[in-house]
Amino acid sequence: MFGINNVTILLISTEELSYKAITHSLKFMVSSTATLLISCPDQRGLVAKFANFIYANGGNIVHADQHTDSAAGLFLTRIEWQLDGFYLSRELIAPAFNAIAQPLEAKWQLHFSDTVQRIAIWVSHQDHCLLDLIWRQRASEIAAEIPLIISNHPNLKVIAEQFGIDYHYIPIANDNKLEQEAKQLELLRDYNIDLVVMAKYMRILSPEFITQFPQVINIHHSFLPAFVGANPYQQAYQRGVKIIGATAHYVTADLDQGPIIEQEVVRVSHRDEVADLIRKGKDLERMVLARAVRSHLQNRVLVYGDRTVVFE
Amino acid sequence: MFGINNVTILLISTEELSYKAITHSLKFMVSSTATLLISCPDQRGLVAKFANFIYANGGNIVHADQHTDSAAGLFLTRIEWQLDGFYLSRELIAPAFNAIAQPLEAKWQLHFSDTVQRIAIWVSHQDHCLLDLIWRQRASEIAAEIPLIISNHPNLKVIAEQFGIDYHYIPIANDNKLEQEAKQLELLRDYNIDLVVMAKYMRILSPEFITQFPQVINIHHSFLPAFVGANPYQQAYQRGVKIIGATAHYVTADLDQGPIIEQEVVRVSHRDEVADLIRKGKDLERMVLARAVRSHLQNRVLVYGDRTVVFE
Amino acid sequence: MFGINNVTILLISTEELSYKAITHSLKFMVSSTATLLISCPDQRGLVAKFANFIYANGGNIVHADQHTDSAAGLFLTRIEWQLDGFYLSRELIAPAFNAIAQPLEAKWQLHFSDTVQRIAIWVSHQDHCLLDLIWRQRASEIAAEIPLIISNHPNLKVIAEQFGIDYHYIPIANDNKLEQEAKQLELLRDYNIDLVVMAKYMRILSPEFITQFPQVINIHHSFLPAFVGANPYQQAYQRGVKIIGATAHYVTADLDQGPIIEQEVVRVSHRDEVADLIRKGKDLERMVLARAVRSHLQNRVLVYGDRTVVFE
Amino acid sequence: MFGINNVTILLISTEELSYKAITHSLKFMVSSTATLLISCPDQRGLVAKFANFIYANGGNIVHADQHTDSAAGLFLTRIEWQLDGFYLSRELIAPAFNAIAQPLEAKWQLHFSDTVQRIAIWVSHQDHCLLDLIWRQRASEIAAEIPLIISNHPNLKVIAEQFGIDYHYIPIANDNKLEQEAKQLELLRDYNIDLVVMAKYMRILSPEFITQFPQVINIHHSFLPAFVGANPYQQAYQRGVKIIGATAHYVTADLDQGPIIEQEVVRVSHRDEVADLIRKGKDLERMVLARAVRSHLQNRVLVYGDRTVVFE
Repeated sequence: MFGINNVTILLISTEELSYKAITHSLKFMVSSTATLLISCPDQRGLVAKFANFIYANGGNIVHADQHTDSAAGLFLTRIEWQLDGFYLSRELIAPAFNAIAQPLEAKWQLHFSDTVQRIAIWVSHQDHCLLDLIWRQRASEIAAEIPLIISNHPNLKVIAEQFGIDYHYIPIANDNKLEQEAKQLELLRDYNIDLVVMAKYMRILSPEFITQFPQVINIHHSFLPAFVGANPYQQAYQRGVKIIGATAHYVTADLDQGPIIEQEVVRVSHRDEVADLIRKGKDLERMVLARAVRSHLQNRVLVYGDRTVVFE
Repeated sequence: MFGINNVTILLISTEELSYKAITHSLKFMVSSTATLLISCPDQRGLVAKFANFIYANGGNIVHADQHTDSAAGLFLTRIEWQLDGFYLSRELIAPAFNAIAQPLEAKWQLHFSDTVQRIAIWVSHQDHCLLDLIWRQRASEIAAEIPLIISNHPNLKVIAEQFGIDYHYIPIANDNKLEQEAKQLELLRDYNIDLVVMAKYMRILSPEFITQFPQVINIHHSFLPAFVGANPYQQAYQRGVKIIGATAHYVTADLDQGPIIEQEVVRVSHRDEVADLIRKGKDLERMVLARAVRSHLQNRVLVYGDRTVVFE
Repeated sequence: MFGINNVTILLISTEELSYKAITHSLKFMVSSTATLLISCPDQRGLVAKFANFIYANGGNIVHADQHTDSAAGLFLTRIEWQLDGFYLSRELIAPAFNAIAQPLEAKWQLHFSDTVQRIAIWVSHQDHCLLDLIWRQRASEIAAEIPLIISNHPNLKVIAEQFGIDYHYIPIANDNKLEQEAKQLELLRDYNIDLVVMAKYMRILSPEFITQFPQVINIHHSFLPAFVGANPYQQAYQRGVKIIGATAHYVTADLDQGPIIEQEVVRVSHRDEVADLIRKGKDLERMVLARAVRSHLQNRVLVYGDRTVVFE
Repeated sequence: MFGINNVTILLISTEELSYKAITHSLKFMVSSTATLLISCPDQRGLVAKFANFIYANGGNIVHADQHTDSAAGLFLTRIEWQLDGFYLSRELIAPAFNAIAQPLEAKWQLHFSDTVQRIAIWVSHQDHCLLDLIWRQRASEIAAEIPLIISNHPNLKVIAEQFGIDYHYIPIANDNKLEQEAKQLELLRDYNIDLVVMAKYMRILSPEFITQFPQVINIHHSFLPAFVGANPYQQAYQRGVKIIGATAHYVTADLDQGPIIEQEVVRVSHRDEVADLIRKGKDLERMVLARAVRSHLQNRVLVYGDRTVVFE
């Protein structure tokens, strides 16, 4: 059957061509890239050493950015270069770079742009973030596969079916949480999932879960750290704030305290009732979550301590 | 088959209930309202006269707002009151109010909140605004029926089918425009359409069309009046602007010059290529168009001259 | 000597005239207005009753706005009308309106636009909000007199002298607070002060002070309720937020919990050190405080419970 | 006499210390830096070559950022390093780097952080941008000297006197423009001016002037390219826009078309009269101009073609 998926992709590329624009994704299709995300104690010569590693091996850098956190004494950088023409085979890059990184006590990750990551989207009742992520994936704004949806409610199964995504309904009660989390972890393994996106999944993960699967992005329907916890829109209404926000962050054992990836706000007034805050909040949530997931998938987010550097 | 439509509505109401919030829509379900949008030459006693008309007939005002354009010497107001308990039957409100309005030389419109307006969405290639409007209608953010989609391309028919909306493909060439517009106008009559929403419909309407069907909202992918015309993102890129925007406006014979309903902007930088501007612009377009359509459907927009008052 | 004061006023009016614009302030100079701020239990006919009171006495309404807080069952309104041609003398308005208000159990305030309020600005070390308020007052953006500056530090006295404003240095130690507050209250009485603006005054007022002088606006250098208390920029930095804000609110006995008048935010990134947050925050603080003071002076702010309605 | 200048500096440093923050300026006081702004045809190894030049000479890079304009085939970068410990003396850096730059066909500029630039502020009637720039300079937000103010009106002389800045009144009529521009150019030479900031100077410079003195930043009271030319707020009002903006740009022979450095916007509504747009616009103008001047002085702005890269 001719699905929405194909149409959208077709349309987008038509649009792009009409603007004669070479998009990032098109560039990467032409030549795959490798990306290093590095953090290490600050010292002289780091930019040169890393750039030389790429250049000496014939690489063409397409993006390089760095940041120094003076207080922490840390140097953080992102380097992306074209694999086309690079002398080292993919398998050799990691060991070769390690020889440079180890004496510098650097922590680092290596990613390839053509490795399509696999996302599991977790939901509860609400469908707006789920539909938005699916649309963006169909429109190539988010370069990932979405083979799995997990929910503690059965309601959104029809959406999963509509887009041909597997849907697993795993209800959570107070007395079966760890047991159900075991099932969730098994599914993540079975589906070979790289990233969990909590798209308004309203249950708290146990610290044990996070230890076993730490790559989880959550959308908190509030401008953290204001209105931590449940019913933030109700809280915001009662407090009479003039601006509300939403926050996308990595999930840690400490609820609503994980490293923030992206935030956005919108102005509200006394005329906005709680239902209006919820409605305006949905637009924020959709956008903020999508931006955070996109940055993560493009390997632009480097976490250190409780903070992130989002390289642009 | 169990469709997305029903699910979403179900979910939304569950969500709302969980917040124990009484939404506008719920309020209106309990009691329908009438809304008067009035403009007239400014003079003493207008607020009292209009409020008395409602009060004397037993109405309970739920929203009243006014604006005076001193330069134009115009008084503009929106009054909304509950029909429940109002002494006048619906048929009698217009003639009764006319007796007050005529001596004041007032122009006015009367709307009932339970009259569900019928929208035709017009599209070309791109699906993001179309899908967004459908989602919001399903989620009850936009209170309207969408029985008709018209396009100058066949591509988006699958989306129409998916949501059970009629899709009419009417290609436009340089030599058949008026002829095709006649077909479009016939469809609008056949489907009893109240409002046309040009959701990235990339063809210009003739002045004749607008004369015959003046209720048309367009989304212009630029912060008007900057970058009027085609390829605004390409123009914005070349000009090196640091902020881009989108504008929803009523369509008039003078292209891109109709009264502005809503605008929004987003910050961009030198890192954003044309494709990034297009991507960021899509989010703006979705939001700005949805807000404008919602304001229009709630009878909050009063056009005078080339300008609007949007009562909040 | 020819001071900055006079020049600025001269310039502004020249500028305005060159735009041939009739400003609000000019309008009010032509005809003074009276403003009623009313809150009362919601019921049928309120708009009509209040509008009739004005109309029956020959008043011309220049601004009327209302809001209904359904949850609280409260009707809140602001009505402003020209005194020119109004049948009632100023002294008679209050008793006449009271006859209407009492049966409705309405709370209300009556203000006259030509009553120039007197502000005391309180500061500690920092001068940016102080200078900004003085500049805006000189530029007629803020219609008030500023006869008094109070500080717990001697540093900013030179600024006071420069602009011919009395400066009282009242240091606060832990053991002399109430005693010093007595001096402050005496100054407010002596100078006939209507409003205290805490323009980065870094000391907490006692509940007793607020009871005796409740008209106090504070600028909190944070997007409340995030980062309550001291060093919010340091907190924001450590938390790695992507947006910072500032909040202007009325001061209540409960620190940082008073009704919010205005908020604004600005985007920050990992590149911003604490000093950058402070710098960006200053711009927010200046603007947010100025907007709040202006709204208050124009009698646009109606406090109820812990919230405000800011009529625009 | 004890002026505002000294006080502000004192206060700021006290404030900073209370936050225990190490500001950029403090860092630079500890160690001066050199900054290279480079643009050259894109090719392999550029990052490595430039970084090696710094490292090989013992430099510690404190900021490095780059951008590739694919369409233009251009590589653009900014590198800043500490002079402390750098093997090359200041005089030798330029010739040494030139040996690297020439084969790459690179255009480049070299700046030292402790070279305090000298600004001439040009004004007409309005004082808000002038006062704002002076305050920021006094508060160390803008690291520059301001020895000269030029105006085509005599009005603001009192401000110049107040802050001990020379004020030259050079009226411009239609028939004496080039003659007066000759005087202006002479003053710029006499005062050894590096940068002209047109802080609401409402006269157009001749192309000849720009050729002789190209370092000019202007604040345009509009969101360019909307409302080019005179009276943009009047234009914005008549067009009924929902957002207004301001633009800081370098001045070129083509009026209002120079490379944009910074833009900002603010939401307006039908309630805002022209005078309100002017008032809101002033806040935008102050902020946008200050940010642009600060970026320029920190050597963060690289112009190429009609566009800028602003390295953050």
